[in-house]
Amino acid sequence: MTILVGIVGISGFGGGEALRLIANHPAFELVYAAGDSTAGSPLADRFPGLPAKLAHLVIQKWDPATLPNLDVLFASLPTGASAAALARVPQTVKIVDIGGDHRYATGWAYGLADVWPSQITGQTRVANPGCFPAATLNALAPLLVNNLIDPGNIVIDAKTGISGAGRGGDSKFGYAESNENLVPYGMLEHTHMPEIATTIEHLSGGSAAGLVFTPHLVPMTRGILVTIYCRGTATTAQCLSAARDFYAGRDFIRVSDTPPQTKWATGSNLSFVSYAADPKRNLVIAMGVVDNLGKGAAGQAVQNANLMCGLPETTGLEGLPVWP
Amino acid sequence: MTILVGIVGISGFGGGEALRLIANHPAFELVYAAGDSTAGSPLADRFPGLPAKLAHLVIQKWDPATLPNLDVLFASLPTGASAAALARVPQTVKIVDIGGDHRYATGWAYGLADVWPSQITGQTRVANPGCFPAATLNALAPLLVNNLIDPGNIVIDAKTGISGAGRGGDSKFGYAESNENLVPYGMLEHTHMPEIATTIEHLSGGSAAGLVFTPHLVPMTRGILVTIYCRGTATTAQCLSAARDFYAGRDFIRVSDTPPQTKWATGSNLSFVSYAADPKRNLVIAMGVVDNLGKGAAGQAVQNANLMCGLPETTGLEGLPVWP
Amino acid sequence: MTILVGIVGISGFGGGEALRLIANHPAFELVYAAGDSTAGSPLADRFPGLPAKLAHLVIQKWDPATLPNLDVLFASLPTGASAAALARVPQTVKIVDIGGDHRYATGWAYGLADVWPSQITGQTRVANPGCFPAATLNALAPLLVNNLIDPGNIVIDAKTGISGAGRGGDSKFGYAESNENLVPYGMLEHTHMPEIATTIEHLSGGSAAGLVFTPHLVPMTRGILVTIYCRGTATTAQCLSAARDFYAGRDFIRVSDTPPQTKWATGSNLSFVSYAADPKRNLVIAMGVVDNLGKGAAGQAVQNANLMCGLPETTGLEGLPVWP
Amino acid sequence: MTILVGIVGISGFGGGEALRLIANHPAFELVYAAGDSTAGSPLADRFPGLPAKLAHLVIQKWDPATLPNLDVLFASLPTGASAAALARVPQTVKIVDIGGDHRYATGWAYGLADVWPSQITGQTRVANPGCFPAATLNALAPLLVNNLIDPGNIVIDAKTGISGAGRGGDSKFGYAESNENLVPYGMLEHTHMPEIATTIEHLSGGSAAGLVFTPHLVPMTRGILVTIYCRGTATTAQCLSAARDFYAGRDFIRVSDTPPQTKWATGSNLSFVSYAADPKRNLVIAMGVVDNLGKGAAGQAVQNANLMCGLPETTGLEGLPVWP
Repeated sequence: MTILVGIVGISGFGGGEALRLIANHPAFELVYAAGDSTAGSPLADRFPGLPAKLAHLVIQKWDPATLPNLDVLFASLPTGASAAALARVPQTVKIVDIGGDHRYATGWAYGLADVWPSQITGQTRVANPGCFPAATLNALAPLLVNNLIDPGNIVIDAKTGISGAGRGGDSKFGYAESNENLVPYGMLEHTHMPEIATTIEHLSGGSAAGLVFTPHLVPMTRGILVTIYCRGTATTAQCLSAARDFYAGRDFIRVSDTPPQTKWATGSNLSFVSYAADPKRNLVIAMGVVDNLGKGAAGQAVQNANLMCGLPETTGLEGLPVWP
Repeated sequence: MTILVGIVGISGFGGGEALRLIANHPAFELVYAAGDSTAGSPLADRFPGLPAKLAHLVIQKWDPATLPNLDVLFASLPTGASAAALARVPQTVKIVDIGGDHRYATGWAYGLADVWPSQITGQTRVANPGCFPAATLNALAPLLVNNLIDPGNIVIDAKTGISGAGRGGDSKFGYAESNENLVPYGMLEHTHMPEIATTIEHLSGGSAAGLVFTPHLVPMTRGILVTIYCRGTATTAQCLSAARDFYAGRDFIRVSDTPPQTKWATGSNLSFVSYAADPKRNLVIAMGVVDNLGKGAAGQAVQNANLMCGLPETTGLEGLPVWP
Repeated sequence: MTILVGIVGISGFGGGEALRLIANHPAFELVYAAGDSTAGSPLADRFPGLPAKLAHLVIQKWDPATLPNLDVLFASLPTGASAAALARVPQTVKIVDIGGDHRYATGWAYGLADVWPSQITGQTRVANPGCFPAATLNALAPLLVNNLIDPGNIVIDAKTGISGAGRGGDSKFGYAESNENLVPYGMLEHTHMPEIATTIEHLSGGSAAGLVFTPHLVPMTRGILVTIYCRGTATTAQCLSAARDFYAGRDFIRVSDTPPQTKWATGSNLSFVSYAADPKRNLVIAMGVVDNLGKGAAGQAVQNANLMCGLPETTGLEGLPVWP
Repeated sequence: MTILVGIVGISGFGGGEALRLIANHPAFELVYAAGDSTAGSPLADRFPGLPAKLAHLVIQKWDPATLPNLDVLFASLPTGASAAALARVPQTVKIVDIGGDHRYATGWAYGLADVWPSQITGQTRVANPGCFPAATLNALAPLLVNNLIDPGNIVIDAKTGISGAGRGGDSKFGYAESNENLVPYGMLEHTHMPEIATTIEHLSGGSAAGLVFTPHLVPMTRGILVTIYCRGTATTAQCLSAARDFYAGRDFIRVSDTPPQTKWATGSNLSFVSYAADPKRNLVIAMGVVDNLGKGAAGQAVQNANLMCGLPETTGLEGLPVWP
């Protein structure tokens, strides 16, 4: 079976990672790549390592009216930029929206693939979770569904590599400005909070979420680590056990006895979770690691597309992390 | 006035930074440098940028019985390695212990220089705070003394550059292993917690401290950022105002309206503090940034030595941060 | 067809990269992993992203007398450490030696796979080129076989990421010492020079090679760039054309019109070559980029093993570079 | 004596480093800072570590007609952007042009301060050398004036940190694009070549220079290393001796027996030179290291200004390199 796929947003980091994964996917054939800032360039000019089989592709100007015959479209557009255009894509084309416009939007499934795979199977419109939510929710889900923590009192200290800020020309993300620099931002108001809160409420059976979320830019290219401070009286062993049960048979989740490191996930679709608890202090620390471009974006998107197309969800995603 | 100073632990990062600061200090003259792993080498072999005036120095084997005539000794030794030997240094030699053995030890003042300068003036034995405590306590002090937060419920998410792990041959701190890697460690049990807790109790008038402290290694050489989640109903403006009042006239503390970045402090003795609060959520986030080798080690040590010697505390510490 | 393979030197960077490639190779099954420093550990303890199908493996102590049934052994041992032990491996086991002990040794083919694939097909003992030689020789081969440059006057300015220095505990490769540092080393005497010289003489039909080779350590984990200054009167277009002809049909060589960047190759088995010439100045600059752990080590080793086993040489090596 | 100084180009990296050095200079008082992109901002908004004594300064729009009373103006403007405006600055104001518009221009001295200090003393218009020329010429000068190498056959392989590319929003200098990437550029045509060639001809007594110059961007913020391949029959010892004689009494030049590393110079005005020669191969390798923002820009500019003003040239430049 060959599934014809396209990518819009090929100039960005998410689009580029989608290309890398799709190029080696045994069932997907890339037939369309679009991106406004690079439209008209041969795809090989932007990706010097492009394989010969894709060397004929030219980057198109993004226009839903001129799509070729497609089975799946991966959309990796800036938040706010995709909704109107994607609405014009024919329903026969499955869409995974890696961008932020359709999370918990009507008509779109929320693609937290490792937690709710059955809700994605067979869907035609799936909104990929944000990168921070992916890391956070995979770590919290086993605790929430087992009532091991209070959903009303969760402090998320989140750290991301700089590719998470997206690609662009802002000098504050320049190498000289960013190397040897660690930057907190978005105090008390990060855009990912509502998505996290809504999902926590779903997972906890409707209890109101109380969240503090503080993101930090770390001088590295890829990787997210969330350190999440929760209230609860479970032991470390109980938390680990709950996670192992919850994720039994799930290929991409690794429950680790020791604190996970971002480099464990680089270049892969893996999601590491771990826990450290102190019942005497009513404290559960949950930790999650993903590659923000893998499980946090293109990896999860391919996993969602696999589920949407009825393929095994690991198809094309077996690559081990790149280390060192 | 020339004050004769020595450094023991010259092979480590803290000792090296002390050398850099002392070499340009107008009142200090370096006459002694000791370090076991490099004893016998010309100091210039280890520090290719050493100025001509110090080129005659040879690294000595550390032995308190063979000290030259000294006014001040800076000790930058691994925790656990310094107490016995430093006890044998004559009382006529002032000591600043950058290592961890004398914090809150009998006979030693605790050198949190920006908070309690008057307790250091004229002392002969001063224990430098740890790097994480320096960043943390400078940020928390104005809140604690003004009862703006609950000392019993403080979550410290701490991030440090890798020089904070000390110098040595452990391959887990190797470049290839550490670059593009973010590593949480010491969950629930970091060695700096008792020092922070004791100081919080002093600052809050005796209330018991309740702490969670989670350090993370960040792929950068220098810099500490602490993001501290507290409970309290003060506004952001009240916190900033309390800090500006508390630190009025203090040269090394910068109260910032925006979240501080580690690169603001690199190479300097500055300590940045900032706050973001949401009274409706009973939340105060305090942030602190220092250079772990500056205010977190050698810079604070020189500041303490200045106070001990009756010099203006800024002497030799006026250098601006290195940027970019 | 399932080919049973083993890796010795699993604790090092080269062994780790071999593991990553072999784990996803459709014809190879990893049944043996050995490494002295980690013997006895579950393989999954060292590689947190290990797939479930390999989770049963335990790292063995390296001993050729206790090998399981194997078709191919990848040896990634420090130079000087492998010859005696590998001599005891049965001839029925094909060996690719990623280490340096068998380059141009009797009974071993020299595995410069993109230049001389036919010399590797069907062999049982193949010595992988060094990482610098791989980058250098791929760039020079088309010029030498076409007599476009003087083999007696070649200046190679080589730059490598720090994983090229191997894994270990030397503090000079520590993160704090290495970040923001660029280090020339091995002036006039690098160990890779004889291998390069011998190969140049082969490629140029016996003319004596005259080489200057200067390696530099660059603060990055992976990647090699060689900038090679040669004497010749070919134009840039002639050099590019010669390379395109020479490498016609070769999958892993990319001839680039513009200077190649190390990140183009990261995580892949690709080798980029480019040229800039000025006939008026009798100057040809050849450039080569590889991932030192890919084409410079494990990638080339898998390619060699494919050829030795009669598989298509690209098998298991189709992964695109990881970017960014 | 208080010398009133100004900086134009305060938004760039060179201007920022000039600020850092001037702020601690005992004879200079900063009274003017201009920069188009940030005009109107308090200087403290751009430099969070600014000392209190400079906190009153506001960044001005650059206009030579509205200069305050100044003794020295440091101009750090993009090449091509400064000549017309600087021509309108009164002759009573000494100018050091850190930018590229006045190197070997009529009426401007060439400020290679460690080689020709006497040509700078008392001047009113001095053009700072480029960063690559500074590193290169300091290394070559002793060889050229002693006829130890052939000026007609010099290959310069130059490597720079990314701050050398200047500040701006070009995404190719973004952190994610640049980290783990090593990039050759400007093949055969770099803008610094004429300046280097002219100076080589001066130093060699008029012989024509024959140069190859290839710059590379290295993933680090600061630092330049040049590896220069020359023809000559001097021994290593003879080259080192020639350099030690040539630079006797010069404070900022360090002649090193071992290859210099960029981190030796970070944050300082030091310039390291070293040599490795093989007379049998008619080969002399010269190496030079500087901080591109120190000796390669603002450090050398302050040194030039000191000479222009009749101050000791080391005034305000005694800071040791920042390590690690």
